[in-house]
Amino acid sequence: MSDLYERAPERGPGLRLHLNENTAGCPPAALEAMRSVTAAQASAYPDYGDTYRACADWLGAREDELLITNGLDEGIYTAAVAWLQRGPNGSAAEAIVVEPAYALFAASAEVVGARVVRVGPRPDFDLPLEETLAAITPATRVVFLASPANPSGRLAPRDAVEAIARRLPPGAVLFLDEAYVEFAHASFLGDLRSYPNVVLGRTFAKAFGLAAVRAGYVVAAAPLIAQLRRVILPFSVNVFALAAVRAAIRDGAYVRWYVDQVAESRRRLYAMCERLGFDCWQSEANFVLVRVGPRAAELVEALAARRIYVRDRSSMNGCEGCIRITAGLVEHADACVAAMEELCARA
Amino acid sequence: MSDLYERAPERGPGLRLHLNENTAGCPPAALEAMRSVTAAQASAYPDYGDTYRACADWLGAREDELLITNGLDEGIYTAAVAWLQRGPNGSAAEAIVVEPAYALFAASAEVVGARVVRVGPRPDFDLPLEETLAAITPATRVVFLASPANPSGRLAPRDAVEAIARRLPPGAVLFLDEAYVEFAHASFLGDLRSYPNVVLGRTFAKAFGLAAVRAGYVVAAAPLIAQLRRVILPFSVNVFALAAVRAAIRDGAYVRWYVDQVAESRRRLYAMCERLGFDCWQSEANFVLVRVGPRAAELVEALAARRIYVRDRSSMNGCEGCIRITAGLVEHADACVAAMEELCARA
Repeated sequence: MSDLYERAPERGPGLRLHLNENTAGCPPAALEAMRSVTAAQASAYPDYGDTYRACADWLGAREDELLITNGLDEGIYTAAVAWLQRGPNGSAAEAIVVEPAYALFAASAEVVGARVVRVGPRPDFDLPLEETLAAITPATRVVFLASPANPSGRLAPRDAVEAIARRLPPGAVLFLDEAYVEFAHASFLGDLRSYPNVVLGRTFAKAFGLAAVRAGYVVAAAPLIAQLRRVILPFSVNVFALAAVRAAIRDGAYVRWYVDQVAESRRRLYAMCERLGFDCWQSEANFVLVRVGPRAAELVEALAARRIYVRDRSSMNGCEGCIRITAGLVEHADACVAAMEELCARA
Repeated sequence: MSDLYERAPERGPGLRLHLNENTAGCPPAALEAMRSVTAAQASAYPDYGDTYRACADWLGAREDELLITNGLDEGIYTAAVAWLQRGPNGSAAEAIVVEPAYALFAASAEVVGARVVRVGPRPDFDLPLEETLAAITPATRVVFLASPANPSGRLAPRDAVEAIARRLPPGAVLFLDEAYVEFAHASFLGDLRSYPNVVLGRTFAKAFGLAAVRAGYVVAAAPLIAQLRRVILPFSVNVFALAAVRAAIRDGAYVRWYVDQVAESRRRLYAMCERLGFDCWQSEANFVLVRVGPRAAELVEALAARRIYVRDRSSMNGCEGCIRITAGLVEHADACVAAMEELCARA
């Protein structure tokens, strides 16, 4: 997706605060489980049964309400293939993207020929509910919405999610991306059974620290999951992902500890913004969006020269002059704060 | 792909001769490399640079002629997304599938709304060249052909591949699936630069023993690879696959040893067929197709009861009464031969 998705440059060794990864590394229990994969398991097409059972139990869902994917990216892409292709008469489906948003929503929709309808941000990244409702047409097939949103870190209010779901035409779905939900105070999971047109996307890449292992999942009413299964590859999830997921969901303590680290890191980043006079937004995710002004690109490179990597988000709708800093271990936040204060004091 | 792709039932422990896996397990060097993946590597989005460089070197290709995929399945699927979607006027693209064939060719084409044109087999699975050429129309966008073919094990003659490539309309490609090429005496790789409309698909799942790790690759002229890159997810390949691929291609001795085992296993399966009076076909892959007659399904279940799993292929075009037996380690072939002889003598 070279022309649709702007991949961050591959950086050398350093402090990775640019891709919202878990900066503590994957859970020890998951690493141990992955290292226990045998030569025979690596060479045989994987069985998914155990992992589906464990994951469905953990979520309080039925197995036919669950689809485990090759990262949540594959969940988004599969939704586009299932619901956003052109019809037999050539008409383009419409995908609504509430911006600023993860680039793969629009990129996946465009790959299958859909028309992307972008709803721009309000000041302070409040969810633009009326604008989103107004963008819905009979051709709408998917609304992509993230909660918490990336890069603002703002949660979508539950009543707004419900209002969008209720307004959708028959056959359309609300794809609610909860990639960062473990860091937030609320999820839509408990309400999902009341909304048979809402598809919840989640991942093990963030709080669970398994970005490179590629494991995500989608939860939705069984008929929607069946539609996704019809178009997804039968063996897209690898055996290490299966082992890691089973171990990770057994080890709740790791995620609780990490979520606390992230919360404290966010507070330290807010305090830094206060001291330096930068606007930022209260985040319910593992990152903080900071408006540093016209020097954003320059500041990102100056930090990179010190091997601290953050992400320039200036080019995103509503994010002019903004950088996004991953909040991970507190010591990592402190390192970034120290470098930022030195660079910005000096300037 | 539940209704398009017939997944083999998940079997319990036993001798897996039903999915053409490497029955010796993955190479020790690859397992060691995968066990060396650190917690920090598992939690960070992977860098692909090193693996692309190593893989391109090994193939004698440039990096822009190579796409590493989440198993070869993703290469096939991505080709369908890139080349087989409906046009803006709703017209369906045509995909030609030379049958009997790997089910994901047709399944992937159907997922994106293409019309699948099936070319039936000749007796003895000789490549139906004239029929394939006659099936090509201005709407043809992809011809899927495997060499060696699955489930026959027959190689596609080079001049036939060239004839098909030359006959294709502008913008169409020949997708040549060489998943089993390491077991064969010839590949099209050396001719690829003369055919800018041929896409070669390969995998680390078979001879390299990495089916559960999910790693395949596509080699083609740079403009075709660019078209695939535009529609593939940026992080579909996991970090264990990257580590395993680098290790596997350094360790040529393992594959040479395993290919010899497979060749001897094939000979033992041919000899068994001779003794039992079953037709079979000389295979250049790690499996042998055996015509056991109307008892195929019954025989597959009788073998499964002894925990030896083979695949009933009776329902495939031209494969009436046929089972497919994976040829792996010689001791595994011997176990299957002994059980077959006992069951078929008893009947």
